[in-house]
Amino acid sequence: MNTTFLGSFLDDGPNARPLQWQLIQRLKHAILQGQFPAGGKLPSSRALAEELNISRNTVLIAYEQLTAEGYIIADRQGTRVAQLKSHQGSKHHTDAATALIIKANKNALYAERLKPIAASQRASDRTLPMTLGLPALNHFPIHLWRKAYDRALHEAPAASLGYGNPLGELALRQAIAHHLRISRGVRCEASHIVITEGAQEALSLCVKLFTNPKDTAWVEEPGYRGAKNAFYAGDLNVIAMRVDNDGIVIPPQAWLTHSPRLIQTTPSHQYPTGAVLSITRRLDLIEQARRVGAWIVEDDYDSEFRHQGEPIASMQGLMQDSPVLYVGTFSKTMFPALRLGFLVLPECLTSPALISVISEILRGGHRLEQLAMAHFIESGQFSRHLGRMRRLYRERQYALREALAAHLIVEHQVLGGNSGLHLTVRLPKTVSDQMLVAEALKIGIGPTALSAFAIEPTEEDNGLVIGYGNTSAERFHFLIKQLNNIVCALS
Amino acid sequence: MNTTFLGSFLDDGPNARPLQWQLIQRLKHAILQGQFPAGGKLPSSRALAEELNISRNTVLIAYEQLTAEGYIIADRQGTRVAQLKSHQGSKHHTDAATALIIKANKNALYAERLKPIAASQRASDRTLPMTLGLPALNHFPIHLWRKAYDRALHEAPAASLGYGNPLGELALRQAIAHHLRISRGVRCEASHIVITEGAQEALSLCVKLFTNPKDTAWVEEPGYRGAKNAFYAGDLNVIAMRVDNDGIVIPPQAWLTHSPRLIQTTPSHQYPTGAVLSITRRLDLIEQARRVGAWIVEDDYDSEFRHQGEPIASMQGLMQDSPVLYVGTFSKTMFPALRLGFLVLPECLTSPALISVISEILRGGHRLEQLAMAHFIESGQFSRHLGRMRRLYRERQYALREALAAHLIVEHQVLGGNSGLHLTVRLPKTVSDQMLVAEALKIGIGPTALSAFAIEPTEEDNGLVIGYGNTSAERFHFLIKQLNNIVCALS
Repeated sequence: MNTTFLGSFLDDGPNARPLQWQLIQRLKHAILQGQFPAGGKLPSSRALAEELNISRNTVLIAYEQLTAEGYIIADRQGTRVAQLKSHQGSKHHTDAATALIIKANKNALYAERLKPIAASQRASDRTLPMTLGLPALNHFPIHLWRKAYDRALHEAPAASLGYGNPLGELALRQAIAHHLRISRGVRCEASHIVITEGAQEALSLCVKLFTNPKDTAWVEEPGYRGAKNAFYAGDLNVIAMRVDNDGIVIPPQAWLTHSPRLIQTTPSHQYPTGAVLSITRRLDLIEQARRVGAWIVEDDYDSEFRHQGEPIASMQGLMQDSPVLYVGTFSKTMFPALRLGFLVLPECLTSPALISVISEILRGGHRLEQLAMAHFIESGQFSRHLGRMRRLYRERQYALREALAAHLIVEHQVLGGNSGLHLTVRLPKTVSDQMLVAEALKIGIGPTALSAFAIEPTEEDNGLVIGYGNTSAERFHFLIKQLNNIVCALS
Repeated sequence: MNTTFLGSFLDDGPNARPLQWQLIQRLKHAILQGQFPAGGKLPSSRALAEELNISRNTVLIAYEQLTAEGYIIADRQGTRVAQLKSHQGSKHHTDAATALIIKANKNALYAERLKPIAASQRASDRTLPMTLGLPALNHFPIHLWRKAYDRALHEAPAASLGYGNPLGELALRQAIAHHLRISRGVRCEASHIVITEGAQEALSLCVKLFTNPKDTAWVEEPGYRGAKNAFYAGDLNVIAMRVDNDGIVIPPQAWLTHSPRLIQTTPSHQYPTGAVLSITRRLDLIEQARRVGAWIVEDDYDSEFRHQGEPIASMQGLMQDSPVLYVGTFSKTMFPALRLGFLVLPECLTSPALISVISEILRGGHRLEQLAMAHFIESGQFSRHLGRMRRLYRERQYALREALAAHLIVEHQVLGGNSGLHLTVRLPKTVSDQMLVAEALKIGIGPTALSAFAIEPTEEDNGLVIGYGNTSAERFHFLIKQLNNIVCALS
C-alpha cells in the first residue's frame, strides 16, 4: 500500500501540531477520500512508523483514535479500513449542496410560521435620534450600576454561579412584587413572579404555557409588533382588533366567532397610539375573558413614566383573580441590554405542576444581574432614577410637541403622550409614512412608520411614531424641520 | 347624593398619599361598588370640595382623571357616572373565580404540549455533590471575570446599554468562530454565529426557525431532556432512537416512515452514555439528512474537556455544507449563570431574509457580558481556564472511578468518561434507579437516574448519571460508600 502521501504532510517544525494529531488527520482524510480501499488492511504500526520515521507509539495512538471513531476496525486479522459510504459531500460544490437542501425542503427552508413575521424597516444603528423604545442611555447612572453589580459579584458565594431558581432570584422577585403592589396596584406575591429575558420572553412564555397551535390570539391594531411575532412564532391564529380613543374595541360577536385564548393589550398607554383603555371596556374584557377561558396579556411597558394626571392603575389589580397575565420589563426603566423582564401569574396558575413545568422550560441564570437589580430597587436607587427620568422625558416630550407645532406645517394630529417615551403623529394620506421613514433614515433620523404597527393598515394608520427617550430636547427643532422638508418634498 | 363615605376615608396625616390620589381611589371604588348609580349626576366640584373641606382644584383633578379613565362622563349636562357592568368580579370568592376559569378552559389550563414535559426529580438545591452538568464553581477565576466585566463596563459607550445586534456582539461572534475553527474543527465565520441564552435557547431557536408543528424530530434515547422539552414545546412529533456503543442507531426504514425535520445528536460524547458516534454513522446521517431535507442538531456540550485521546472533531466540520446546526454553550466551560450559548448556522441559511427574521425574534442585549466574554477568549484567559479545568476534571473522574471500583459492590458497568463532567453507571434491574436517587437526595447526594433520560426506559437504562464537575475528588470514597449502603438496602 502506498503511504508516501502521509509522510509528505508530516511537519515537525517548531510551531507544528503534534505528529500524532497530524497523522490522525491525514489518515482520516485518506480514508474519507477513498485512498485506502474499504476493507483493505492498513500497514502494521511497526511498518508505518519505520516508513514515516516516527515512533511506533505515535502510530499506535493514531490507530487507537481511528478505531474509537470508527474509521478503522481492529480485530484478530489486523487493522482494516471500515466500509464507509463514498464521501459524496466533499465533492459537492457549495451551491450544489445548498441546492440539494433547498430542493429537499421543497423551497420551504424556514418554518411556515415565520412568513407573517415581517422584517422591519429598522435601522441597523438602533441609537439614531427618534428611535423608538430607547431610554436616555447617557443619563443612566452606570457608576451606580457598576457598584451594585460589583457588590453582587463580591458577595456572591461560588454557588451563585450555578443555575439557580429557574423562576428567578427570590430577592428580585420580592423586590418586584413590592414595587408593583405600590406603584402599579398589581395584586401579587413574590411566588407569582417569573423573571424573564425582557418582555419578549414573557410573551413567548405565555404562548408556550397557555396556548395550543391554531388557538386564536387577539392583538391591538395598530399594536406592538413583538407580541404579534411571539404569537406567530407559536402558530397562533392572530386576529387584529382596532383601537380607538378608549383603547381596544371588541365587536361583541367576536367572542363567539373568534373566541380567543390570549388577548394582548396595553391598557395604560396603548402602544403606539397612547389611548387609555376605559373602565367600561376593562370590566367587560375581564368578564368576557373569564367566561370563555381566555387570558388577557397586560403589557405594562411604560407606565412608570406617567407625565399627566395620576397613574392609571393596572388592569390586573382591578379585581381579585382577574384572568390577567401581567408583563413588565426593565428595558425602559433601566436599560435594554440588561434584558430583565417579568411575568406575573394569576394565583390560580401558580400550582406546583405548572411551576415545575416552567422550571423545565426556563434555565434561570443571570443571577448576579438579578441580585444587583434587587439591590438597586431595595436601596431606593431605582425610584430615584425613575423620578429623574420622568422629569427628563417630560421636558423632552414638551420640546418635541413644541417643535411639531412650530415646524411640521402639514396638517397632523398628535396622539398619546400621557406617559412613556414616544408620541404618535397621524399624517394625511398624501404623505406615505413608509417613504417618509425611508428618507429620514438616509439622513440619520430614526422614527418609525405608524403603518408598520398594523397588520392591515387603514388611512388612520399613516403617520410617525417618534421616540423621544434617547433624544435631547434641544435637537427636536432641527429634527422636525428636517422631517418637514422631507414631507414637503414627498407631498 | 350621600357622599359622607368619601370624606370619612380621606387622611391628611404626615405619611398619607396625596388627597387627590385618595379621592380618586375612593370615587373609583364607590362607582365600581355601585354606590353611585349609573347615569346619576355627581355633585358639582364646588359642592364636593365644600363638603369634604378640600380645595376645589383637588376635586377637579380627580374628576378629570376619572373622565380620562372612563369612570364618569362629562358633558353639557354636568358630570355623570358611566354605565358600567356590575362589578361581579369583586363578589367572587377566590376559589369560585378560579373554578370558573378552570371550567371555561375545560380543565385544560395549560398547553397540550406541556403534557410530555415531565417534571424532573431534580433537587431544589442544584449544587449537591454529584449534581449533573455543573462545572467546578469554586474553581472559576471570578476575580478575572470581575476585571473583564468591569473593563467592558468602563469602556462601554452609553450606546452599548441599548439593544445592540440581536445576533450578538460582533467581537464575541468573531472570538467564538476563531475558537471553534481551531479547537473543534467547525467550519464557520462570525456571520454564521447567533449568540443565545445558553444551549437551551439555541435548541428552541432551531425549532422556531426550521420546523412546523407536527413535524418529526428524532432524539437520542436515552438522551438530553432539554432537547426533548424544546421539541415538545414546539409541538413536534418526538421519536426516540436508541443509542448503542457507537452512538445513535437509525433503522434504515425510519427515513421513509418517520422522515425527520430535526435530528438531535451529541456525536462527540453522547449524553448521557458517553458513546462516540462512529464515522460510518456520521457520514450516513449527513447523507440521508441532506437527501430528506432534515437538519442535524449537533449539541457539542462538553467536548472541550477531552480526557483521553485526541479531540473528536465536530460533525459540522466533517465536510463542507453539512446540514448541521451546531450548538454550543459556555455554561460548562465558564459558569451556568452566565447564560451564554451559540448556534452556528450553515452558510446556506445565512440569507438576509433569515437573518432579518432572527432579528425580529431575538432582542440582543447582555452586551456587557458578551464583550467581557469576548475579551476573556481573546486574552487567552479562556484557554488557560479550560486547561486548568481539564486537569481538575480528569483527577475528579479518576477518583470517582476508583471509588466505584472500591465501594460499589453491586455488579455495574461504567460508561463514557472520555470527556466531560459526568460518568454513567449502569446498574442491574434489581436496583431501581429512581428509588436509589430518591433515597440519595434525602441524605444530600444528587446523582440523576439514567432512566429519567429515556422516553420509554428499557432495562439497559437503569443506572446513575453522576456529575463530578463540582464535587471534590476526595469526597467520592465517602459518597460512593453512602450510595452503596442505599443499594444494599434496596436490593
